[in-house]
Amino acid sequence: MKIAVDAMGGDFAPDAIIEGVLMAAAELPENVAIVLIGKQAIMQELIKKHNAEAVANIELVNADDVIDMSEHPTKALSQKPNSSIGVGFKLLKEGKVQAFCSAGNTGAMHVGALFSIKAIEGILRPCIAGFVPQLTGGYAVMLDIGANADCKPEMLAQFGHIGSIYAQSTFNIDKPRVALMNIGSEEQKGSLVAQAAHQLLKENHRINFIGNIEGGDFFGGHADVIITDGFTGNTMFKLGESFYKVAAQRGLSDEFLDKTNYESVGGSPILGVNGNVIIAHGISSPLAIKNMIGLAIRQVESDAYTKIAQALS
Amino acid sequence: MKIAVDAMGGDFAPDAIIEGVLMAAAELPENVAIVLIGKQAIMQELIKKHNAEAVANIELVNADDVIDMSEHPTKALSQKPNSSIGVGFKLLKEGKVQAFCSAGNTGAMHVGALFSIKAIEGILRPCIAGFVPQLTGGYAVMLDIGANADCKPEMLAQFGHIGSIYAQSTFNIDKPRVALMNIGSEEQKGSLVAQAAHQLLKENHRINFIGNIEGGDFFGGHADVIITDGFTGNTMFKLGESFYKVAAQRGLSDEFLDKTNYESVGGSPILGVNGNVIIAHGISSPLAIKNMIGLAIRQVESDAYTKIAQALS
Repeated sequence: MKIAVDAMGGDFAPDAIIEGVLMAAAELPENVAIVLIGKQAIMQELIKKHNAEAVANIELVNADDVIDMSEHPTKALSQKPNSSIGVGFKLLKEGKVQAFCSAGNTGAMHVGALFSIKAIEGILRPCIAGFVPQLTGGYAVMLDIGANADCKPEMLAQFGHIGSIYAQSTFNIDKPRVALMNIGSEEQKGSLVAQAAHQLLKENHRINFIGNIEGGDFFGGHADVIITDGFTGNTMFKLGESFYKVAAQRGLSDEFLDKTNYESVGGSPILGVNGNVIIAHGISSPLAIKNMIGLAIRQVESDAYTKIAQALS
Repeated sequence: MKIAVDAMGGDFAPDAIIEGVLMAAAELPENVAIVLIGKQAIMQELIKKHNAEAVANIELVNADDVIDMSEHPTKALSQKPNSSIGVGFKLLKEGKVQAFCSAGNTGAMHVGALFSIKAIEGILRPCIAGFVPQLTGGYAVMLDIGANADCKPEMLAQFGHIGSIYAQSTFNIDKPRVALMNIGSEEQKGSLVAQAAHQLLKENHRINFIGNIEGGDFFGGHADVIITDGFTGNTMFKLGESFYKVAAQRGLSDEFLDKTNYESVGGSPILGVNGNVIIAHGISSPLAIKNMIGLAIRQVESDAYTKIAQALS
C-alpha cells in the first residue's frame, strides 16, 4: 500500500510535512510506504536534516510546481499539471498510490479529485467529512463540513447513506446511528431543507436513522454519523475545534479536550469520489500529518469508497 | 419600572422561578419592582416557603391557566387568554409593565409578542438574540439564534442593523463591530444567502461592518455583533453553551467556561418588536432567572427597542 503525501502544501510546508512523514514512517506497518511529492532537492535536504536513516519506506517523487493556498483551484490545476497536487492526483488515478493527502489548497484538492478520479456514479455531490470526538469515546463522522455551502434535501439524505457506510467500514461500527443536525428534536422542526431531509432519511431503511440532534449534543455520544449542510457543518466543526484553543488559552489540560484539537485525527476525507483523498488543515503540524497518514491507511484498508460505489450501483 | 416574570413557565417552574425572583428582589434598585404572574395560591405558598419577608418589591398577578411547553403556540394563546403568558403580554401591551420574561413555551412567547406588542414597522422578521462570552471580556450579541430557520439576505442585513443598535444602547459599545458568520474570510465565500448578505451589510454605512468571521472565531473577541440565520445560529449557540457542560463533566473549572453556561446571562431578547420580551431556557435555574431579570432591567433602561424603531422610521 502506498500513501502519497503532498510535501509542499500547508502553511508550514515543507518542514512540518516532512517531519510528520518521518514520524509516521518510523511506525509504519511493513506493507505500507509513503510517497512524498514535491521539489526533490528540498525534500532530500529536509529528510537529511531530520533523519538521515530509516527512510526505506519513503519514496520521493519530484514535482516542480506548487499551487499556493490563495490560487484559484481550477485555473491552478490546469496551469500547473506538474504541481505537487497535480502529480498526486495523477498517481492516484493511475493506481500507483492508494491514497493522496495534502494540507495545501483545499479547493484544488476538491477540484483535483473531481477531475481525476471523479465522483462515484450516483453521487449528487461529494462532501468533506470531519471527526467529532465524543464524550462516550471515539469519534462521530460529520458531513458535510464545508464542500457544499448550499445543500438540497436529497444531498443531505445521501450524506446519511455514505456516512453510514464510511463509519461502518472505517470505524467498524455496526449499524451506525445516523442523526440530522437540527434546531429541535421534533421532525417538523428546522429549515425547509432540514425538514425535507428528515423525511428522506427516515424513509431510507438501509441506514439506522435516529432522528434529529441539536447543537448541544455535538460531543454527547448520541450519534455515529452527523448529517448537515456544508455551511452549518463548517461553522460548527470549527467552533468545536476551537474548544481546544480556548482551553489551552485558559491553561486547562484534559484528555477529552485534547481530542477536539484538529491534530488528533489530522485529516478530513473527501467522500463520494472513486478513491481515498484526504485534506488536512493548512496549519498542520507534524503530529497532524502523522495522524492523517494513519487515517489514510485505515481508509485504504477499509475500502470504504468501493463499498459506497457498490451501495449506489 | 416593572418587570413581569412568568412564574409558571420552565421545566422547574414555579419553584425555580420564584426562587430566582426572590434572589433578584433582594438586590433590586429602588425604582424597580417585579410582577410575578401565575397561580396566586401557589405563588404565595412558595414565597412564604422561601422567604416570608422582604417582598415589598414583588407584586403578584393571578393567571389561572398555564401554556405547556409542548402546546401549539398560536392555538394555546387564543384558547388560554388567562394563561401566565397571555396575561404577561396583556400587561406589556397596556404599558403596565416595561418588560415581560418567561422560561416557558418559546413559540408562545414569540407569537405572543407578534400578536400583542407587534413587530416594529419596517422589521422584516423579529429575531432572537443570544449572548456569546468573549475571551477578551464581555459578550458578543449573536442574532438570530433560532426564530427564523430560513433567512433571506435582507433579513440578515437587517439583523446587522438592529444588532448594532442593541449592542450600542444596551452594552454601551461605541460603533459595535458587526460580523457575518461565514465559512471563509473572503467576501465571495459561503452560501448564496451569506454572499448576498455580505454585500448588503457592506453597503450599509450606518453600521461598522468588519466582514466575515468563522466558527473558530466564536469566542475570539473579534466582533460585538455576530450575524447569522436562525439555523446556524441556534446550532452554534447551543454548541457554544455545551462547552460549560463538557467542562463540568470533565471536572474542569474556569471563569471563562463558566460564562458559556446559559445561566450567566439567563435570557435571550426578542429583537424587532415594540417592547422588551425576554425568553429564558426551559431548564432555567434560580440563578438564570435572577440574571434574566438583570438583563431585563438593563434593556428597559437602554430603551433599545425605541431606538431601533426610530432608526427604521
